[in-house]
Amino acid sequence: MTAAPLFQRVALIGFGLIGGSIARAARAQGLAGEIVATAHSAKTRARVAELGIADRVVETNAEAADGADLVILSIPVGVCGAVAQEIASHLKPGAIISDVGSVKGAVVRDMAPHLPAGVHFVPAHPVAGTEHSGPDSGFAELFINRWCILTPPEGTDPAAVDRLRAFWTAIGARVETMTPEHHDLVLAITSHLPHLIAYTIVGTAEELGDVTSSEVMKFSAGGFRDFTRIAASDPTMWRDVFLTNKDAVLEMLGTFNEDLSKLTRAMRRGDGEALFEHFTRTRAIRRGIVEIGQNSAAPDFGRLQTSATKKNS
Amino acid sequence: MTAAPLFQRVALIGFGLIGGSIARAARAQGLAGEIVATAHSAKTRARVAELGIADRVVETNAEAADGADLVILSIPVGVCGAVAQEIASHLKPGAIISDVGSVKGAVVRDMAPHLPAGVHFVPAHPVAGTEHSGPDSGFAELFINRWCILTPPEGTDPAAVDRLRAFWTAIGARVETMTPEHHDLVLAITSHLPHLIAYTIVGTAEELGDVTSSEVMKFSAGGFRDFTRIAASDPTMWRDVFLTNKDAVLEMLGTFNEDLSKLTRAMRRGDGEALFEHFTRTRAIRRGIVEIGQNSAAPDFGRLQTSATKKNS
Ligand SMILES: NC(=O)c1ccc[n+]([C@@H]2O[C@H](COP(=O)([O-])OP(=O)(O)OC[C@H]3O[C@@H](n4cnc5c(N)ncnc54)[C@H](OP(=O)(O)O)[C@@H]3O)[C@@H](O)[C@H]2O)c1
Ligand SMILES: NC(=O)c1ccc[n+]([C@@H]2O[C@H](COP(=O)([O-])OP(=O)(O)OC[C@H]3O[C@@H](n4cnc5c(N)ncnc54)[C@H](OP(=O)(O)O)[C@@H]3O)[C@@H](O)[C@H]2O)c1
Repeated sequence: MTAAPLFQRVALIGFGLIGGSIARAARAQGLAGEIVATAHSAKTRARVAELGIADRVVETNAEAADGADLVILSIPVGVCGAVAQEIASHLKPGAIISDVGSVKGAVVRDMAPHLPAGVHFVPAHPVAGTEHSGPDSGFAELFINRWCILTPPEGTDPAAVDRLRAFWTAIGARVETMTPEHHDLVLAITSHLPHLIAYTIVGTAEELGDVTSSEVMKFSAGGFRDFTRIAASDPTMWRDVFLTNKDAVLEMLGTFNEDLSKLTRAMRRGDGEALFEHFTRTRAIRRGIVEIGQNSAAPDFGRLQTSATKKNS
Repeated sequence: MTAAPLFQRVALIGFGLIGGSIARAARAQGLAGEIVATAHSAKTRARVAELGIADRVVETNAEAADGADLVILSIPVGVCGAVAQEIASHLKPGAIISDVGSVKGAVVRDMAPHLPAGVHFVPAHPVAGTEHSGPDSGFAELFINRWCILTPPEGTDPAAVDRLRAFWTAIGARVETMTPEHHDLVLAITSHLPHLIAYTIVGTAEELGDVTSSEVMKFSAGGFRDFTRIAASDPTMWRDVFLTNKDAVLEMLGTFNEDLSKLTRAMRRGDGEALFEHFTRTRAIRRGIVEIGQNSAAPDFGRLQTSATKKNS
């Protein structure tokens, strides 16, 4: 890359699927003069150093934040507040601080009080992922053609929002802005409730008396398999999501339960017409998703100019 | 193929995803001396003739069954009884008659009374599919490394069961035998309940006030997308499944609802430990599915000896 990097120094705190993918993509696009990375455990830090994707791997979050122009927390939602507190006094004036958490209301509530005046807080959530985690699971193409939602608090400097938008755009994402509250409602239905349901049904299948686990696995190709992929996602991440976005998830769950009762009643009554009508209606949503190109989990190669680091779909 | 075909004449009644895939696979493997096909509408029959996968396309189910050594109904579960009645007097003594329905108890109940003595009734269910349907949606590799469950009524000639097993094995499937009742329980949890849940949640997402359908589609990559694929399956097929396997589905649904209440309670109470424990347990099932190679929807090329007709994953 010959263009000047977007940020002189980028600090990545947390180096799992998301942090690791940001690192690979930012490096591939030459977006950072220097990438400084850290993670919680010595083991992950050692692995990151070994992978050679960051320019420097440091021991503490404070050290990583020191002098960085952009700091991104890619860590479980539940620890964002504590980490913000840890790094607050090390943030450089004018720096942008962001995160990638799947819940935004709680992250803003937990982080904002610790952040000093003079830094720009622009929370973000890239709506992209796989069921894998850890430093080896990331890949540069994860964000291509996926949405990244920014939820800047009112009064945030628009120039800072624009710079972060440029960063996400450069690594392939499409960027949208909304309030944290609206984000949490949208994600409750498009991500959190589906995960809760998938975790439930996979648990149900595991404890049946009449049908063995081995049968469940063997004959999973009829639909169940897709739920197990979702229910294999990281337990820490998802515990934090459900603890911090409880209200929105409970609201969606209420509507879901009503709808399930309706379908159950139709089945019980043998009302084939009601079933047929419902099953026809839901096809339209799928068609819409296919039309806007959000139907495949496969990373979208061919848009970024550099070669793939790792394919992981 | 130089080996003698397994069956002199194979009749395929119904030529959608499943019938069309059987035709392509049987032809690729040279399993039939002649493939005779039919479907409900003149339009589909014309398309099948155009595709050139069957040796003969006929107008009526009776004509198709005439003189066939193996007759397979690949039609919605709800019409199997009527079609059995239609073709009964045309079945050749010693012929094997089978189906591919996703429910087995009801199919046996509806078909068996019409079938004459001297033919062998061996119901089957290949646990493989996609969300597509129609004569163009089939492909020869659909059944490779997938299970096909046979549910022969007590007293069925073991030689007939073996011949059908050989047929399914030759087109790539692994074959297992069980009672129709057990089949219906197993499939209720591994396929029918997942579909009911997916149809429900996609319906829920479509009618929310706070979140628009366009937002649901845009941000579907966080999990919802996978449910929409399932909820795009054929409405006729699924209406029939829920009407004919009601009892087993309701039984599984009861357990599911209890489990969902438990998880909901843990979330409401902020019981992170209970959530974490549950989310860790469900990962094991996924690991099991990956280990036995049932984790991917992609057709498993490279096992059949002939070339792919169409890839459709
Ligand atoms: N996975 C997805 O599909 C997805 C999608 C969109 C957004 N997100 C969000 O992205 C965030 C990270 O998810 P992920 O999938 O990348 O998780 P992950 O693969 O489990 O990685 C988490 C990383 O955070 C580090 N970490 C944990 N606590 C820390 C602390 N106190 N200080 C510094 N580092 C710490 C971990 O270090 P160790 O390895 O040393 O423990 C690890 O490197 C979550 O907030 C999640 O909500 C996830
Ligand atoms: N799709 C799956 O994932 C899957 C998996 C395993 C088993 N199954 C089972 O396979 C069966 C067929 O499913 P499919 O996905 O192949 O369906 P499909 O693509 O919709 O095809 C159904 C076929 O049945 C024909 N048909 C309907 N009524 C008929 C009648 N009275 N006489 C003759 N032909 C008739 C249709 O003809 P027209 O085109 O002219 O209407 C069409 O060719 C169902 O019983 C289903 O339970 C499906």
